[in-house]
Amino acid sequence: MSQGDLVRVAGAHDAMGATLAQQAGFQAVWSSSLEVSASRCLPDASVLTMTEYLAAAANMQKAIDIPVVADVDTGYGNNLNVAHMVHEYEAAGITAVAMEDKLYPKVNSFAEAAQTLLPLADFAQKIETAKNAQRGEDFYVIARTEALIDGLGVEEALKRCTAYADAGADAILIHSKKKDEGEIVEFLDGWDGRKPVVIVPTTYPQWSAAEATKHGVSVVIYANQGLRATVQALRTTFGTIYRDGTSLGVESEIAPVSDVFALQRLQDWLALEA
Amino acid sequence: MSQGDLVRVAGAHDAMGATLAQQAGFQAVWSSSLEVSASRCLPDASVLTMTEYLAAAANMQKAIDIPVVADVDTGYGNNLNVAHMVHEYEAAGITAVAMEDKLYPKVNSFAEAAQTLLPLADFAQKIETAKNAQRGEDFYVIARTEALIDGLGVEEALKRCTAYADAGADAILIHSKKKDEGEIVEFLDGWDGRKPVVIVPTTYPQWSAAEATKHGVSVVIYANQGLRATVQALRTTFGTIYRDGTSLGVESEIAPVSDVFALQRLQDWLALEA
Amino acid sequence: MSQGDLVRVAGAHDAMGATLAQQAGFQAVWSSSLEVSASRCLPDASVLTMTEYLAAAANMQKAIDIPVVADVDTGYGNNLNVAHMVHEYEAAGITAVAMEDKLYPKVNSFAEAAQTLLPLADFAQKIETAKNAQRGEDFYVIARTEALIDGLGVEEALKRCTAYADAGADAILIHSKKKDEGEIVEFLDGWDGRKPVVIVPTTYPQWSAAEATKHGVSVVIYANQGLRATVQALRTTFGTIYRDGTSLGVESEIAPVSDVFALQRLQDWLALEA
Amino acid sequence: MSQGDLVRVAGAHDAMGATLAQQAGFQAVWSSSLEVSASRCLPDASVLTMTEYLAAAANMQKAIDIPVVADVDTGYGNNLNVAHMVHEYEAAGITAVAMEDKLYPKVNSFAEAAQTLLPLADFAQKIETAKNAQRGEDFYVIARTEALIDGLGVEEALKRCTAYADAGADAILIHSKKKDEGEIVEFLDGWDGRKPVVIVPTTYPQWSAAEATKHGVSVVIYANQGLRATVQALRTTFGTIYRDGTSLGVESEIAPVSDVFALQRLQDWLALEA
Repeated sequence: MSQGDLVRVAGAHDAMGATLAQQAGFQAVWSSSLEVSASRCLPDASVLTMTEYLAAAANMQKAIDIPVVADVDTGYGNNLNVAHMVHEYEAAGITAVAMEDKLYPKVNSFAEAAQTLLPLADFAQKIETAKNAQRGEDFYVIARTEALIDGLGVEEALKRCTAYADAGADAILIHSKKKDEGEIVEFLDGWDGRKPVVIVPTTYPQWSAAEATKHGVSVVIYANQGLRATVQALRTTFGTIYRDGTSLGVESEIAPVSDVFALQRLQDWLALEA
Repeated sequence: MSQGDLVRVAGAHDAMGATLAQQAGFQAVWSSSLEVSASRCLPDASVLTMTEYLAAAANMQKAIDIPVVADVDTGYGNNLNVAHMVHEYEAAGITAVAMEDKLYPKVNSFAEAAQTLLPLADFAQKIETAKNAQRGEDFYVIARTEALIDGLGVEEALKRCTAYADAGADAILIHSKKKDEGEIVEFLDGWDGRKPVVIVPTTYPQWSAAEATKHGVSVVIYANQGLRATVQALRTTFGTIYRDGTSLGVESEIAPVSDVFALQRLQDWLALEA
Repeated sequence: MSQGDLVRVAGAHDAMGATLAQQAGFQAVWSSSLEVSASRCLPDASVLTMTEYLAAAANMQKAIDIPVVADVDTGYGNNLNVAHMVHEYEAAGITAVAMEDKLYPKVNSFAEAAQTLLPLADFAQKIETAKNAQRGEDFYVIARTEALIDGLGVEEALKRCTAYADAGADAILIHSKKKDEGEIVEFLDGWDGRKPVVIVPTTYPQWSAAEATKHGVSVVIYANQGLRATVQALRTTFGTIYRDGTSLGVESEIAPVSDVFALQRLQDWLALEA
Repeated sequence: MSQGDLVRVAGAHDAMGATLAQQAGFQAVWSSSLEVSASRCLPDASVLTMTEYLAAAANMQKAIDIPVVADVDTGYGNNLNVAHMVHEYEAAGITAVAMEDKLYPKVNSFAEAAQTLLPLADFAQKIETAKNAQRGEDFYVIARTEALIDGLGVEEALKRCTAYADAGADAILIHSKKKDEGEIVEFLDGWDGRKPVVIVPTTYPQWSAAEATKHGVSVVIYANQGLRATVQALRTTFGTIYRDGTSLGVESEIAPVSDVFALQRLQDWLALEA
């Protein structure tokens, strides 16, 4: 993540989405808590457990060659939960997690709900615990601040990210729900570059990857567009089939069964037989 | 399923797809082995286990009010596996399963591979075992014959379905991979109606639900169009974002985040708080 | 639980232990968080997730005819987590849960660690949420206070249990880590009997079930003796085999393989075949 | 396994048993299908799925420093299932599996049931497929023949083990249900030593590890004595508590709670906090 070139990451919630993201050219896949919880029709509010988020991330990682960056929310509790999370994710072959500084249980950053932050020192300790718990070399902890989401301003965001970097974070993620990139640019102008910066431009898509790179961003996550495309596609497809009493009207709009088979790689499997 | 009106069923592999099928008007959801295995990028060849197929079906059932009809392939082995399958699915709140008369491990019916059938008597015994294992009243076993898929002809299919009905099957599913409905019509003409008939017109979509009803079909399953729509949507969306370096170009084509929140029903959840 | 006769409950962590508890005569099985976490060699500190505790409880319930009373710790978070917990446990066939008024993440009551309690009103709201979330008739929520564990005294314990009963709890559990039954007796003397009382006499085993019944106790849980017997048995058995270089010296002390087969009920399974 | 010194292995089904085996001095832990299925009170007859057997093995491996040798029965189906099994076990950190040459679904070798074998060439292909599917260096496939269990004689056992070794097996396991070691000794006398030999002296415990070593055995598995000790301990402990109406009578026979805490290593966990 520190090679200078922008890393682009697409959100997914299952191996198929992750594989299609890889095929499209992305360099990593974001195992999105919003996507995973939405696929279960449950709120993105720490209702699903680490076990379930980890299973989703691990199943994605098994299917792709590029890394999964796992959205681990708050780390699922306190320091002990964070240590356990690191042990489990690392054992499952995940090499990067992003942990945010909100209270457990959290609520999605775009939801109309309180977005209360953990005290800075407590979250710094979580980062430190995560790095202590890590067993191998190849595991990265991204510290995500929700200071802007909670309306605490750029100065607080910078102060927190500096502390998290000092606590051992391998990168920092600065999140915003503003419709323009203003506060993100302000943050980047104030950031001393001690660690790479990750952004998630869900609400400010007009700010391109090229622009972000100029301002020093290292990683851009397109966190949930795949999910939203899926919702739209299923709504249209199911609606048409039900209305028409046949799938004839959608056949030309959807992938053929042979495309599905290709994603399942049956031929590769048969090649394993002697 | 025996009320005379056609029951229409849409295939899905997760709670979100199942919910969108329900919203579109479908009367049931098909927990498709093709979809579930494809979502893992693994072949539809009995590689995933009952545990995983059941988890997918149960997660769908929890999210919807209409029934899930679970595709349980061959029943995952012999009679003991079938008995265990019935215990587990019933305990998880699933009320209908469709079991097919191929050998374990099976391969997807549309794959270029041998589609060898179990001897008739052995599969009839599986059906009988499933009905013996059932504990409550509200559990239905659909016997699916792959006789046409294996090229054994309509006569063999009728003979098998008759035996399966006699063994206690609550409905029969006749599958075909022909591009026209010819052999299905021939089957229906020869069927004595002792049990409702289910079809899956993946390869013959020109044969509408209205036509099928006239020929005595009770249930039509649109088994994998949702998955195929998802593949197409993800490919297009990821491709555009990667090419453009921004999600701006797809925003108008995909569901807004608020639609995702609606599917997650956060408000219903908050209402459970005192 | 309200029939007047004492209900005796044995702790277990898997179906085999639960079955042996049923065979010994116990009326219910305690799905103990201490046992489940110990079986994983992980601290009893909310490190394992609801998914894992539920799987253990559900697997026990599937194997026995008597009810499982599931130890659900704090309910795994806040009100939303409690609602989800009730949905999931109920869907899995569990009919009784015991939830405690400590902060999430909790630590085992006998551990040398802070045992901080949630404010009374917050936990009462959790109980109310649990009862709101319940879908069927046959589901019971036991409110467990840790007031004595936290050193807050009998008066606080009574105040809390009264509030929890008013919030809808179906029974209350009063826990103590004292070596004598003194504070438990004091509690029982002050309790107005509006709901049945459950105790867990791990540290005061000299106080018999007969004595407890006289003081108004309805349910006694022997929470972890099975686990501790297992630890002892494994230590001795493995030690002897390793020392001797043969299992000959333990054969007369351990159950024969045929006893294991009987617990697995292979004959019942074979009887399901036609 | 090829260092010349005898490797002794104890059977277990959870992390606690595995840890106690390690503490007793064993060099590896056998993740026993009999134990795992018995802990669920389900027959050892391929009823539980690979997902569940793998979860048990992986949870053991996470808790110990010595290797888990996973009993993977028949490989859970055909060649594709074997390939998937290898991928999944390897990804979960398991470094050795033992696969047997019976038909799927299998029944426990000591059960009164048919013990039909797969044709030699088919099982050799499974071994070859397993080795093809392996991704890292550090993964070992033990080929287990049930020829003696099926009454086919020593000559057939030797023929099969030779073929399995030629197909790439890293070791061979020769199983017997005889009450004396006669046919095992005969096998060992006929074995050319091309691969290490593993035995499981459940029915012939009088044949010590020292004797086995002299005849060329490299690995001895004490497969289920821990489980059988647990059954006995639970029966006695639950029986006494129920009869007495108190646990007082068992307290001196069972491990103290502090021993359980030690197995849970809470102090190690707290040390991970900064």
